[in-house]
Amino acid sequence: MQQAQFEQQKNSGNPEWLSALADIVGEHWIRTDDGDLHNYGQDWTRQYIPKPKAIVLPRTASEVQAIVQLANRADFALVPSGGRTGLSGGAVASNGEVVMALDRMNAIKSFNAGDRQVVCEAGVITRQLQQFAEEKSLFYPVNFASSGSSQLGGNVATNAGGIKVIRYGLTRNWVAGLKVVTGSGELLELNGGLTKNATGYDLRHLFIGSEGTLGIIVELTLILTNPPKNPVVLLLGLQDMANSMQVLRCFQSGLALTAFEFFSDLALAHVIAHKHLSRPLSTKCSFYLLIEFEQLAELDMESAMELFEHCLEQGWIEDGTISQSQAQASNLWHLREDISETIARFTPYKNDISVKVSDVPTFLADVEALVNAEYPDFEIIWFGHIGDGNLHLNILKPPALEPESFLHKCATVSEHVYALVKQYGGSVSAEHGIGLIKKPFLHYSRNEAEIRLMRAIKKGFDPNNIMNPGKIFDPE
Amino acid sequence: MQQAQFEQQKNSGNPEWLSALADIVGEHWIRTDDGDLHNYGQDWTRQYIPKPKAIVLPRTASEVQAIVQLANRADFALVPSGGRTGLSGGAVASNGEVVMALDRMNAIKSFNAGDRQVVCEAGVITRQLQQFAEEKSLFYPVNFASSGSSQLGGNVATNAGGIKVIRYGLTRNWVAGLKVVTGSGELLELNGGLTKNATGYDLRHLFIGSEGTLGIIVELTLILTNPPKNPVVLLLGLQDMANSMQVLRCFQSGLALTAFEFFSDLALAHVIAHKHLSRPLSTKCSFYLLIEFEQLAELDMESAMELFEHCLEQGWIEDGTISQSQAQASNLWHLREDISETIARFTPYKNDISVKVSDVPTFLADVEALVNAEYPDFEIIWFGHIGDGNLHLNILKPPALEPESFLHKCATVSEHVYALVKQYGGSVSAEHGIGLIKKPFLHYSRNEAEIRLMRAIKKGFDPNNIMNPGKIFDPE
Repeated sequence: MQQAQFEQQKNSGNPEWLSALADIVGEHWIRTDDGDLHNYGQDWTRQYIPKPKAIVLPRTASEVQAIVQLANRADFALVPSGGRTGLSGGAVASNGEVVMALDRMNAIKSFNAGDRQVVCEAGVITRQLQQFAEEKSLFYPVNFASSGSSQLGGNVATNAGGIKVIRYGLTRNWVAGLKVVTGSGELLELNGGLTKNATGYDLRHLFIGSEGTLGIIVELTLILTNPPKNPVVLLLGLQDMANSMQVLRCFQSGLALTAFEFFSDLALAHVIAHKHLSRPLSTKCSFYLLIEFEQLAELDMESAMELFEHCLEQGWIEDGTISQSQAQASNLWHLREDISETIARFTPYKNDISVKVSDVPTFLADVEALVNAEYPDFEIIWFGHIGDGNLHLNILKPPALEPESFLHKCATVSEHVYALVKQYGGSVSAEHGIGLIKKPFLHYSRNEAEIRLMRAIKKGFDPNNIMNPGKIFDPE
Repeated sequence: MQQAQFEQQKNSGNPEWLSALADIVGEHWIRTDDGDLHNYGQDWTRQYIPKPKAIVLPRTASEVQAIVQLANRADFALVPSGGRTGLSGGAVASNGEVVMALDRMNAIKSFNAGDRQVVCEAGVITRQLQQFAEEKSLFYPVNFASSGSSQLGGNVATNAGGIKVIRYGLTRNWVAGLKVVTGSGELLELNGGLTKNATGYDLRHLFIGSEGTLGIIVELTLILTNPPKNPVVLLLGLQDMANSMQVLRCFQSGLALTAFEFFSDLALAHVIAHKHLSRPLSTKCSFYLLIEFEQLAELDMESAMELFEHCLEQGWIEDGTISQSQAQASNLWHLREDISETIARFTPYKNDISVKVSDVPTFLADVEALVNAEYPDFEIIWFGHIGDGNLHLNILKPPALEPESFLHKCATVSEHVYALVKQYGGSVSAEHGIGLIKKPFLHYSRNEAEIRLMRAIKKGFDPNNIMNPGKIFDPE
């Protein structure tokens, strides 16, 4: 539709842009009822009042392109929307935007066994792909708590991480190609499934982690790999987190690690109480390491026992256990995976931060010290992916404290934690993204020059600031 | 130095910019003699007449920054220069530029065993890092023929690949942090060694593969890994390259592959003749696959034999051999690695292209058909990294043909090959980069919209077009 045509167009009840939208997707795929506006206008943060002006559900890349072109002509903002499982407000529409939800673009389009590549529409659910890979005796290794709802396009837009990053890396590593519609409405096919392609700037990598601010991902070519063999889990207890680095170095050099997680005794206590479990180790320790490795050879089990003995002898760990079956491995994993769920009723303050792996022990001690000094009644629950330097800091609300007062105090904690993150050269968002929630704190991890360059890049892809405006950073 | 000051400055013999340059690095580290201008003004392409106006050798990141700022004020162009082993003319200075050579910035600055990260200045030679990693019982896995001369900064600027990409990926995968000076003279520290960092656009990935056009890399934080265990090599002979895909699928699902290379019988014949070797297999085949895997368990050797038998039974391969020692493995590797050297005396036309792995057999047949149809007297030598879809096409000059006439005909071949590459959605440069040589052909792999976006990005980082101007693409 041309600009002139658009201006001429009349429609009795609806504004012109809405009827133009209906021309693209059909009236049935536009939603303006309160329930849908509420549902599609928010992610898992639940901190912003959802206020989109419409929801549009395109079926094809061409429809997406037409919608973006219309948004440029009619000057409305678009919020790309996947599974809305994000924790940073990246998919929130609280400012009269049109939400473009990818739910209908959920086909696994093709699979090539020779390339081990699968072409998916952006709305495919992560678990759907994982199951598809399994059927092909292959494996899609990016996995996290929200895999049952999160969509692949959203995973790429936030470069999702998860629990196996130490072995498989982030979503970025598995993207061989992207089809995107830029903010100016151009359809780009980026890298097209090639392994090697040294032809200038890799725009694919620019889109990965761009949180919908440069354009919208409509199709992905993802790489699959061999499934892991015989995962074995160790749970080790230690009093001093400083020793975790020796343990990591020790196990990392000897075995093919697939996870190196940690949690504090306070975290474990909640899981045990909530799930009515007995303690996994007879010794009560301050922290626990959960280590998973692939048993590739018979010998690996012996190696693991030797490494375990060595760590005990050195006094790095106090106690430990090793899984002898898949059921035992799964039980040990539950101690780590059930933490979030069991502390949810304490309406915890949550933060997702990262530092260099080797800085984890001192950083953790520094954060504890600063929180304890200011708010000695706060209970701190730690867990995270220590092998990636990624800590999940949780603070439980003391029962006596009013929620509002707790939130207020936590805002102070955040400022202090971010100042510390900056001091360590760390990241204010390890894996959740910046979105709206961390926008005020972006400057703790990225300097003015970088933010200026990000703005310049966005301007190139989205000159009219149509795509997810106000996320990550504000326009100048 | 301020602009006003700069304009006032007088210097008897030298132009002002040259004396300002000397103020930064010291007179000794500026070279203007013919030998140096010739040497530093070219890479391994040897197709352009080197014509820089000076060579400057900074020692520190601050000096680099001062030089870039001076270039902006005094309006001269800079060509970043590493080992100059490039094959695309990316480091050529044939237009009166100042070459900024990183040779003096060659320190390995620090190593952190907990992070398995090493911080290197950009001028560190690839082999220097490989040896350093070995001393730490670790491994830097990016390896290629020019590792003894190429510098790490250059490797990152071209996202160097090499012979183990199927297992370890490209240079990109090993970069945990970059310190760069942008074209506008700002020093950026990108990602600082973090594993997880979801804070907006990853500018680190934009610099990887940017061929010095956005700024200059001054320091790198690289990741090391465990050394490979017990590499075993198979050499398999086959008549029909189409079968190579079944062989790949077969071996890929059963073993931890570290290489999947191929070469044609014509390539093998040259190595055998030149090195006075006997044929490695009793059956003469059209093509050979060189497969390397890590023997992680005793059982892997049995698996390899079973897979080999299976491929024979299916008729996919005709013959084969498996290394029983490191010496045998090394001998088999030489058959592949010595091809370039043995055909060098035929002044071959060379091209480095890629398609999707599964497209390799038909693409190869299509290229052969088109060359044979037009120039039946041309001898085509194939080798490459079939596991990455990366083919090295070599055409030998027929002895009777004049070099100039050969070059002219090869230019026609190139146009046809690139048209075919485009048809396959492949890359006109798999791993060498675009530089000057492939600039006229960039549009076969990247469309107008992408090239426009690349220009916009460059403008953001390098508004005065100071950094390696005219490489990859021309300004508008």
